[in-house]
Amino acid sequence: MQIGTDELAPLARGCAVLGTGGGGEVTTSTLIARQAIEQHGPVPLVGLDDLPPDAVLMPVGGIGAPSVSIEKIGSGTEIGALRRAVEQATGRPVAALMASEIGGGNGVLPVAWAATCGLPLLDADSMGRAFPQVDMVSQNVAGIPPELIVIADERDNVVTVRAADGAWAELISRAVTDVFGGSAAMADYVMPVARARGAVIEGSVSRAVAIGRAVATAADPVAGLLAAVDGVRLVEGKVVDVQRRTAGGFVRGSVLVEGVGPDSGRSVLVDIQNENLVAREGDRVLASVPDLITVVDQQTADAVATELLRYGQRVVVLAFGCHPLWRTGRGLQVAGPRAFGYDLDFVPLEVLHGVG
Amino acid sequence: MQIGTDELAPLARGCAVLGTGGGGEVTTSTLIARQAIEQHGPVPLVGLDDLPPDAVLMPVGGIGAPSVSIEKIGSGTEIGALRRAVEQATGRPVAALMASEIGGGNGVLPVAWAATCGLPLLDADSMGRAFPQVDMVSQNVAGIPPELIVIADERDNVVTVRAADGAWAELISRAVTDVFGGSAAMADYVMPVARARGAVIEGSVSRAVAIGRAVATAADPVAGLLAAVDGVRLVEGKVVDVQRRTAGGFVRGSVLVEGVGPDSGRSVLVDIQNENLVAREGDRVLASVPDLITVVDQQTADAVATELLRYGQRVVVLAFGCHPLWRTGRGLQVAGPRAFGYDLDFVPLEVLHGVG
Repeated sequence: MQIGTDELAPLARGCAVLGTGGGGEVTTSTLIARQAIEQHGPVPLVGLDDLPPDAVLMPVGGIGAPSVSIEKIGSGTEIGALRRAVEQATGRPVAALMASEIGGGNGVLPVAWAATCGLPLLDADSMGRAFPQVDMVSQNVAGIPPELIVIADERDNVVTVRAADGAWAELISRAVTDVFGGSAAMADYVMPVARARGAVIEGSVSRAVAIGRAVATAADPVAGLLAAVDGVRLVEGKVVDVQRRTAGGFVRGSVLVEGVGPDSGRSVLVDIQNENLVAREGDRVLASVPDLITVVDQQTADAVATELLRYGQRVVVLAFGCHPLWRTGRGLQVAGPRAFGYDLDFVPLEVLHGVG
Repeated sequence: MQIGTDELAPLARGCAVLGTGGGGEVTTSTLIARQAIEQHGPVPLVGLDDLPPDAVLMPVGGIGAPSVSIEKIGSGTEIGALRRAVEQATGRPVAALMASEIGGGNGVLPVAWAATCGLPLLDADSMGRAFPQVDMVSQNVAGIPPELIVIADERDNVVTVRAADGAWAELISRAVTDVFGGSAAMADYVMPVARARGAVIEGSVSRAVAIGRAVATAADPVAGLLAAVDGVRLVEGKVVDVQRRTAGGFVRGSVLVEGVGPDSGRSVLVDIQNENLVAREGDRVLASVPDLITVVDQQTADAVATELLRYGQRVVVLAFGCHPLWRTGRGLQVAGPRAFGYDLDFVPLEVLHGVG
């Protein structure tokens, strides 16, 4: 399989859904990827078995606040700077790129970068969704230390980080991103292919494309999406309030959805830290990280990025289960509700809703 | 010449004077250097001519707020981490260390690190004093870009920075130091020896030792110090107020000295950003950066670090001229009063006081 211009629209649609509001909106990254593919050709999508065990795998993506990155667009030179720094640090050529997070624009941008570099893209990612922090990755759950992180900006600043652990990787990377203006390009958890086995979430790119195609071909897009992700409809309604502030390299806030039609009288609040974290109706938790909560357009089922939420939007809030690794003890330690500061035990979505 | 345990006390005394209150107090670094010399032997002090032109010179020092570093002491592993990162980035062995700033503990610590590494120390530095910012170095005045900066902390975090320019080098390094807790070890403006010619201030280490020896052997220590540095006595008096706050990786504040004896009735205020920046009596500027302002003990002529200033100290505030490179147009652009936010043209000390 390869990612050509025909695959971009479904990929972007699927990535937006898996982004749970974060990872950056997908329009700009899709335009960048389209141009890169037209210029350099389609990107081969490969599996771990297609790469030599000692080949260098470079996971990449944007880091920062989505509401910054929507205006502060990269120069296009960042991926070259990241690759040079990684090849200098490892002393070896990069064999393939991978999306650090499949969610949002961060799932699409690596296609552009792979085309530009003339490298294949691994059909995998480190989250199976989007998460706001550098340490919230499958490699960390697998116990792999962040040996090599590189952060580059559009001014030709390049910072290489060898962090003591995942928490320090996040602290340092966030401080550097903040001083870069709140948004930057990053390669993180660079590692040999052999080490990636069991430490990355395989099939993420093709899953995103499949979700996008399911929505595009469904008579009822929202129903098609719910079927494709095995999701639960939390509420259908209108956005009546959006709280959003950008600080410390994150966007934090909440969105309030008031039910309409069959959901009239209901009111669902979704907390945001770049991504949608917890959906509540009064005191009742409807869904929480690491399960995925996505706000989609009521008509098209297109996911709405947190930075594009606004008053009056007619939406459906839906949720679906995360990759099983996030529900393990270590997974919940890394990206469960308490990792985000909630005094809340994780309850799987299907338990909360008596389904599945 | 070499720096053995006998040279440590005069070196420390001279570095404290050249530190203009900054660069960190010298007691802890002297103890660390003494232990390192006792364990590994004395440190050869070399000139640029003693090193091959293509040898890698690694300027080193502490970065951060002195009032943090006085309590947050390194683990001793930082220099090894810096050296490994530099050797990996350059692909070549480090041939010699150099103090980034000769002022304060940052003039003494490189002796300890050179002993530990078994490397010679270059008799030079990048400031001829201490300055608070990474970009306030002779290499920047000489137009050399900050190609390689490495910052390490005591937890084994190592960050390598390739900054677009000196200003970005400072912004990024400060943000990383801040997240490390306000203090860290740094190698900056790493370069081949050939490039250091005309871009470093030669003779700094032997000058510090000479200043220390002059004070130690003088009947009147303050008079001996003034003669050794060709300095001007600004005021003799008592510390009556100290303002000091630590923020953004710096210490900022001021010290107010009320005259006693012949200076009775006078009042001199010295502004601080890690180092003493500007001394004023009412509206009249008595001395300003890049010239050196040092607060010394009235009896011993030992310089008082800004983080050790306290109410009631009997002191002499003195000033002396900086290295000529700082008085050039480019030098004043990098470290003149306006570089510190003052709406003030630099006037040389000897002009202000009608001497020299």
